[in-house]
Amino acid sequence: MNIPELAYEAIRQAIAEAGIEKKDIDLVVAGYVGGWSSEGLAPVVVMEYAGLTGKPSYRIEAACSTGSAAIKTAYDAVSSGQADIALVFGVEKMNESPTPTVVEFIGRAGNYFWEFENFGLTFPGYYALYATAYMSKYGATEEDLCRVAVKNHYYASMNPKAQFPRKITLEQCMQSRYIAWPLKLFDCSPITDGAAAIVLASEDVAEKLTDSPVWIEAIGAATGTSNLSRRDQFTSLNAATLAAKMAYKKAGIDPDNPAKYIDVAEVHDCFTIAEILAYEDLGFARRGEGYKLIREEQTYIGGKIPVNLSGGLKAKGHPLAATGVSMAAELAHQLLGKVEKGRQAPIKNGRALAHNVGGTGHYTYVTIYSLEKPRAP
Amino acid sequence: MNIPELAYEAIRQAIAEAGIEKKDIDLVVAGYVGGWSSEGLAPVVVMEYAGLTGKPSYRIEAACSTGSAAIKTAYDAVSSGQADIALVFGVEKMNESPTPTVVEFIGRAGNYFWEFENFGLTFPGYYALYATAYMSKYGATEEDLCRVAVKNHYYASMNPKAQFPRKITLEQCMQSRYIAWPLKLFDCSPITDGAAAIVLASEDVAEKLTDSPVWIEAIGAATGTSNLSRRDQFTSLNAATLAAKMAYKKAGIDPDNPAKYIDVAEVHDCFTIAEILAYEDLGFARRGEGYKLIREEQTYIGGKIPVNLSGGLKAKGHPLAATGVSMAAELAHQLLGKVEKGRQAPIKNGRALAHNVGGTGHYTYVTIYSLEKPRAP
Repeated sequence: MNIPELAYEAIRQAIAEAGIEKKDIDLVVAGYVGGWSSEGLAPVVVMEYAGLTGKPSYRIEAACSTGSAAIKTAYDAVSSGQADIALVFGVEKMNESPTPTVVEFIGRAGNYFWEFENFGLTFPGYYALYATAYMSKYGATEEDLCRVAVKNHYYASMNPKAQFPRKITLEQCMQSRYIAWPLKLFDCSPITDGAAAIVLASEDVAEKLTDSPVWIEAIGAATGTSNLSRRDQFTSLNAATLAAKMAYKKAGIDPDNPAKYIDVAEVHDCFTIAEILAYEDLGFARRGEGYKLIREEQTYIGGKIPVNLSGGLKAKGHPLAATGVSMAAELAHQLLGKVEKGRQAPIKNGRALAHNVGGTGHYTYVTIYSLEKPRAP
Repeated sequence: MNIPELAYEAIRQAIAEAGIEKKDIDLVVAGYVGGWSSEGLAPVVVMEYAGLTGKPSYRIEAACSTGSAAIKTAYDAVSSGQADIALVFGVEKMNESPTPTVVEFIGRAGNYFWEFENFGLTFPGYYALYATAYMSKYGATEEDLCRVAVKNHYYASMNPKAQFPRKITLEQCMQSRYIAWPLKLFDCSPITDGAAAIVLASEDVAEKLTDSPVWIEAIGAATGTSNLSRRDQFTSLNAATLAAKMAYKKAGIDPDNPAKYIDVAEVHDCFTIAEILAYEDLGFARRGEGYKLIREEQTYIGGKIPVNLSGGLKAKGHPLAATGVSMAAELAHQLLGKVEKGRQAPIKNGRALAHNVGGTGHYTYVTIYSLEKPRAP
């Protein structure tokens, strides 16, 4: 499949599920980090292939949080009255890399001239810095990291859309080769070709289209320093903490106990350590206690708050710009009780959370989805 | 200057002119086509350099209309109530090209695999196709194209921010070498390093900050086919016609006589033929009569509608993503009577228009700026 074919597969499903026709779409927001081909304007080629030429459009990029940033701009367009129906898609074809390795290409998304060129840092290395700092400060172990991978592969095994729909054991993870100590092969999300798409509609239109809309209740977003040397610590992502605070405030969620309000979360587990940091940055666990949450299986179904029931970036796959959009699709399906048996979260509060990180916290978006219509802002 | 330095020079001026402090900014929208350096997340480096780390942000790309697309998403964020104050910047450093020539790099922004790889089309070639079709159908001459360059250089000569602040003669243009027949050197916009920034504020905040706000009255946007072989004609840009229609409808402007409502326009003269097509796509002239407008000097000050008093892309310069943002800055200054003597348009209706094209009409944005507060949509 080429990029337009990949994207259209998702666009087609989203349009069908929303029960709209292409002519109803007022705005198309393309999420695409790109660089996988020499095609300069891949989103325009997608638009033509998908029969959407003519519609207003632009491309969004915010590194690995591109999908959530795209949703944010579509949300703003719809809620400001500039569009009644917006289509958001994210697509990447990462298996065709312009540089010798994808790891090199993505490594440029830190601070290139200082950290990549001078010190050779790539993303496994960046997150290994966070992992060693965290393990050293709080006593988490390599087994704790692997427990995240085991959980996410377990749920991926029930997700037919996952890149790696199979279980792994703790031993398999522990025996896998080091990529950047202490991160091993099974601590790392894969290189993925993939796409995702969703349809956003205004209040009036949504209520005509369906009896069971899923609402965007709040979006929080923040950025971090380009240089990691300018960060004050390596045991949390400042941008994620800021974005969560903003989203909780808008949604009226107690930041000290968000798990009381939220039924299920998709978090950005590009590396297993990132999921543990996310537990703490989102307030699911206290500082330094995130690793206990996975050790005690509190992020499985039946625990305090189920996380990454899709399989996460780790096992569902991580096609950069598609990731945030796929989180939205997954959480909408979760809230509506539409996912496969065995990985369906019990829905009590009717709220779900997506946590999507670009770079190593260079960008972060936290989005709250709800079955209940939000109060006017 | 490197990219963050270029960007900050514009950001600094915009913040000062708006009378705000950095802490007041709720959202930063980065316009950046990029590819000029190996830096993966140049906008994040700009954020850090400019002291804006922490703010919500994302990057917008819509080829050469990136700046206007960035303004559109900031406008949506502000008008939806998600931000009170948004900063939009656009920056490029085109003199550092990743491919043997900038022309090759930009050439990829057509339809790469079909048109660039197979037929070797680059942007001078694309616009030459439009020029020959137009000249053949309507009888415009190479002199008519050069007249656009002469006008734009004339106004650039009074603009201290122009890349080429000097007049040229019709003879100079006619004697310049062919780049892609019938387009000569002086028919082409240059390769530019540059930046632009503006501040958008909500109604309430704007009225506190200033007694003379400039309002965004309407934005129209549309896309065109990726493949030029799928276009039905080569004498106008369909996307531009659609975007203009949308903007005029929202602003209540008669599409048959927009010059009656608009005091001054900045249009996308990446090549001189593009300005003539713009006259017609925007309804300033009837189909096939755009070249007469410039022949009769109707787009000089004192004519039917003054166009590109900044010098346009042609002579002010065309740093891709900065272009749409600089159009906004220029038109705000025009409406407020703040530009240099000799290139200040007479302001009667208090309305100005920006026309910004990405690719060869792959994206188009038409934005109407107004001194009068727009009616609620």
